[in-house]
Amino acid sequence: MKLRTVSLAILALIMSGMELAAADELLEMQKNSDNWIMPAGTYDNQRYSKLDQINTDNAQDLRVAWTFSTGVLRGHEGNPLVIDGTMYVHTPFPNKVFALDLDEDGAIKWKYEPVQNYEETVPVMCCDTINRGLAYGDGKIFLAQADTTLVALDAKTGKVVWSVKRDDPKQGATSTGAPHVFKDKVLVGISGGEFGVRGYLEAYDVNSGERIWKAYSTGPDEEMLIDPEKTTHLLKPVGKNSSLESWEGEQWKIGGGTTWGWFAYDPELNLVYYGTANPGTWNPVQRPGDNRWSMTIFARDLDTGVAKWAYQMTPHDEWDYDGVNEMVLVDQKIDGEERKLLVHLDRNGFGYTLDRVTGELLVAEKFDPVVNWATHVDMETGRPQVDPRYSTHQNGQDVNTTNICPAALGSKDQQPVAFSPRTGLFYVPANHVCMNYEPFEVSYTAGQPYVGATLTMFPGGKVSGDGSTHLGRFFAWDARKGKVVWEIPERFSVWSGTLATAGDIVAYGTLEGYLKVVDAKSGRELYRFKTPSGIIGNVMTYQHKGKQYLAVLSGLGGWAGIGMAAGLQGETEGLGAVGAYRSLEDWTNLGGTLTVFTLP
Amino acid sequence: MKLRTVSLAILALIMSGMELAAADELLEMQKNSDNWIMPAGTYDNQRYSKLDQINTDNAQDLRVAWTFSTGVLRGHEGNPLVIDGTMYVHTPFPNKVFALDLDEDGAIKWKYEPVQNYEETVPVMCCDTINRGLAYGDGKIFLAQADTTLVALDAKTGKVVWSVKRDDPKQGATSTGAPHVFKDKVLVGISGGEFGVRGYLEAYDVNSGERIWKAYSTGPDEEMLIDPEKTTHLLKPVGKNSSLESWEGEQWKIGGGTTWGWFAYDPELNLVYYGTANPGTWNPVQRPGDNRWSMTIFARDLDTGVAKWAYQMTPHDEWDYDGVNEMVLVDQKIDGEERKLLVHLDRNGFGYTLDRVTGELLVAEKFDPVVNWATHVDMETGRPQVDPRYSTHQNGQDVNTTNICPAALGSKDQQPVAFSPRTGLFYVPANHVCMNYEPFEVSYTAGQPYVGATLTMFPGGKVSGDGSTHLGRFFAWDARKGKVVWEIPERFSVWSGTLATAGDIVAYGTLEGYLKVVDAKSGRELYRFKTPSGIIGNVMTYQHKGKQYLAVLSGLGGWAGIGMAAGLQGETEGLGAVGAYRSLEDWTNLGGTLTVFTLP
Ligand SMILES: O=C(O)c1cc(C(=O)O)c2c(n1)C(=O)C(=O)c1cc(C(=O)O)[nH]c1-2
Ligand SMILES: O=C(O)c1cc(C(=O)O)c2c(n1)C(=O)C(=O)c1cc(C(=O)O)[nH]c1-2
Repeated sequence: MKLRTVSLAILALIMSGMELAAADELLEMQKNSDNWIMPAGTYDNQRYSKLDQINTDNAQDLRVAWTFSTGVLRGHEGNPLVIDGTMYVHTPFPNKVFALDLDEDGAIKWKYEPVQNYEETVPVMCCDTINRGLAYGDGKIFLAQADTTLVALDAKTGKVVWSVKRDDPKQGATSTGAPHVFKDKVLVGISGGEFGVRGYLEAYDVNSGERIWKAYSTGPDEEMLIDPEKTTHLLKPVGKNSSLESWEGEQWKIGGGTTWGWFAYDPELNLVYYGTANPGTWNPVQRPGDNRWSMTIFARDLDTGVAKWAYQMTPHDEWDYDGVNEMVLVDQKIDGEERKLLVHLDRNGFGYTLDRVTGELLVAEKFDPVVNWATHVDMETGRPQVDPRYSTHQNGQDVNTTNICPAALGSKDQQPVAFSPRTGLFYVPANHVCMNYEPFEVSYTAGQPYVGATLTMFPGGKVSGDGSTHLGRFFAWDARKGKVVWEIPERFSVWSGTLATAGDIVAYGTLEGYLKVVDAKSGRELYRFKTPSGIIGNVMTYQHKGKQYLAVLSGLGGWAGIGMAAGLQGETEGLGAVGAYRSLEDWTNLGGTLTVFTLP
Repeated sequence: MKLRTVSLAILALIMSGMELAAADELLEMQKNSDNWIMPAGTYDNQRYSKLDQINTDNAQDLRVAWTFSTGVLRGHEGNPLVIDGTMYVHTPFPNKVFALDLDEDGAIKWKYEPVQNYEETVPVMCCDTINRGLAYGDGKIFLAQADTTLVALDAKTGKVVWSVKRDDPKQGATSTGAPHVFKDKVLVGISGGEFGVRGYLEAYDVNSGERIWKAYSTGPDEEMLIDPEKTTHLLKPVGKNSSLESWEGEQWKIGGGTTWGWFAYDPELNLVYYGTANPGTWNPVQRPGDNRWSMTIFARDLDTGVAKWAYQMTPHDEWDYDGVNEMVLVDQKIDGEERKLLVHLDRNGFGYTLDRVTGELLVAEKFDPVVNWATHVDMETGRPQVDPRYSTHQNGQDVNTTNICPAALGSKDQQPVAFSPRTGLFYVPANHVCMNYEPFEVSYTAGQPYVGATLTMFPGGKVSGDGSTHLGRFFAWDARKGKVVWEIPERFSVWSGTLATAGDIVAYGTLEGYLKVVDAKSGRELYRFKTPSGIIGNVMTYQHKGKQYLAVLSGLGGWAGIGMAAGLQGETEGLGAVGAYRSLEDWTNLGGTLTVFTLP
């Protein structure tokens, strides 16, 4: 029987190999830098490409290769995917998807045009009709429609393979975040914190569309997939019903903690990382307590959804500092020790570096000197030391707390950073905005705004250089030390995601519409080009037939561009953003266009 | 008293000089090729620039300098103006105007956003919400809004200087043609032939906005500004009430002959040249007679509006071959004699060359071999010899006359040609489309469609080269001989206007979205670039700070692009264009973007 045993063993080996191959198709695929197969390019959210044909020596020769109008106005966030000669481009509501032929300057291979109810969906999108892009897995393109339908499209034909309606816009729930495929699951979050939606993360089977798990951000342990003994907060078990105990009554049911950002995955640890948004309402007086687990970084097991650890950055938020900004997974030496890190630059203005295995807090430093709502983060408790002058709760309802920095849209919002393993630095598209914030009593009605605060926003003062005021910055961040290495002041918030490459270039877009390429080491500008509209998309790169390209969607909108996107005029409209960004009108118009760059 | 006489004489000289200077400011200004001050660049409609920095040697190095989204979808016809470092860009409905700073990659100096009634105006625009652009004169920018309001804007500030509501969209009248400033007058036409509008041309005082004259295309002599003794048709006086006699009853009152094309002006002759559109309805059985003066080239005195001569190309139109295509004024030798010529490539497929002083017909030749509705033009009578097989009148109402070439949108539509004095050739963006045409009885109701025919359109057969079918062509035309010199087959109609320059390049755009630059002598392609959307705008050029630029609006629409622009699906919708151009969907999307090109 020896033979039989051996062959069984071999068979087992082969089979597990096959399973592995199937399961980790994306892990294999992301090694091929010609393609860009997921929102951030790779599981680790680094937005780094090994391509180096475009580099610091030749970036000034970049030129536009071709362009593509999406036919949709309003804000174009996210970035296209590229897989073996086909580019997949998405749009804001109504969330069209185009498969473009890279051999034919972007001629259209197929398109998918979902039918969605405008009246039901668009009015409950807080921050423009944006969609953050597509995911790929198992021969399918995944789209998270605004109306919370998750669709799997055949990547070759655009035909619907499966489709699931996940939630209900009539209750204020919408979907703006990109789906993320990790191994054999599609992960997808939910939006609607400004409508009292109770946030959650869901995992679906890529193949069948069956939901595997759902983990709420607030509520009982069972519904949060929290193990009170094993799930830790700063290395200690969170204990029983850690969320429920941090809320008064049933407020957690309409308590926000939505999940509209970018997710990351560590295949070795099999952990998914993401952040939860603000607690609802924006009026903190109406929800005493820490409001767990809003404003929290979560590490969850991909297969079960069970939380390994959590860290709440802003307990009892009083400023709308959603914690959804992306988690970037890097391995760096810190204090002489090589560690598996998670780096996160939060809306609240602190840059956090954690051990991603254990959730231990290693660094928490301000990345914008104007940040004033807290003096520092206590490294023992992990709690920010709130400056009472800027506590909108303490100052109370119907009191206008002034000159809080940052504004509600944070020192950085959804616009994702890039990391270069060559420089060891993070490249951060950032805001530089402060605010006045006046909470007021609000009552909850399903599907109606549940905000409870009036805001105005204004530039965050002097940045550097010529001393003029600015609404934005772009800077390099050393997450090991929590220090800014170099910095570029920008007229407006940089609302576009960054790309870093092995050519030691870093690229980002501005709200005026410039694509800028700078030297990763020094921040020296190498190239700029005025795209048709303001850029809130993320720069990506790919290689086709031996030639490297950069690509970015322009199309003004998002929260910063909501005034022009939605045609709002009042200073405090658009949750306070309209006034601050009014002068965008002097620079650009709406309009969705993909611009693709290459060398001559 | 001698002294007094002399000084009076001098004074008179000075004054006439001043008047001349004021009156001919534009004549002076158009000598400066750095600017582009009127729709066609110059009075003569040549669309030719003396700039030669971009030429046949270096055109392959062209690259995009900057881009600008207009924020408006649907068809973008016409071209920007450039005056001393400022570019003026217009949009389709709602007809925004932007003044862009050429020192700042098109940052917005001012904008004008008219308020127009969508419901009243857009539904009565036959062929998309297009607007063909702006005019400049006397420090003002002139805009002809869709709702027939003519506005003068201060070129420096964008403030309204004066504004006149000229007609009534509720009666089907709209305005799509560019206003044209000739000397001290703004000339502006009217659209609405498909709604029974009686066409006319108007001249307004640039300064006061006062109307100086109005000349109808049909009706009594007084209203047409026709002098029965002096106004000639092929050198002979037209005689009394030449229009009235060519209609039955009062049909001329709803008889079309609109004036939505490009106008030309000869300052020496003081004559304005333009064409009139089809007679209404499209059902010829309902309007026996020649239907004068629809389908006519007019030469009118600029100051009085009185017609010097007229030539009707398509008496009793049975195919919607509007005669509005531009008249290009050139001085060329013909049969050994240098003559002042007028060249016009008509919708009906014949290229006409006339003596523009007298209106004598010199050449009338088919410019597309598939043209079959007429065998030839009788050079004595000027009448086309209609082939009875393709006479929709003779075949009768409710009969589908098939395989007529060209289709209703002609062998060439509004897309203007360019002329190069260096090659002596015309560069023609053209269609290559045939049709089936079935007239039916229709009754007139003010403000309602008054069409009376059902059409389908299809490619005009084999063009040349690979033998595949095409909907378009781009070719060089020798108007002295009435011969095609070289030709480029195109997949779709070339709906974009051409530019010719002293660099011996010719540039045009395609409906797929390519800007193409070709050698004026051979048609050899030198450069192509895929702009964001299909191009129906006209290419223009200017020089800023010593550098030459090309610029073109892309933004699919117009009659050819009406399917995508208006979201129509049915084969015969969009007056028959939807079916033929359906596959545009595989190439491009809507979206208005200006793309500006230059050399490195
Ligand atoms: O709480 C939420 O559910 C929620 C959703 C979204 C969203 O889905 O876009 C944003 C925000 N909050 C938010 O706080 C925010 O700053 C924001 C910016 C943007 C954007 O795309 O520009 N979306 C959102
Ligand atoms: O009879 C008319 O009044 C009238 C108006 C227009 C217009 O204003 O655009 C067009 C036409 N006719 C027409 O026949 C035609 O082919 C056409 C094409 C276009 C275009 O811009 O693509 N407009 C028009």
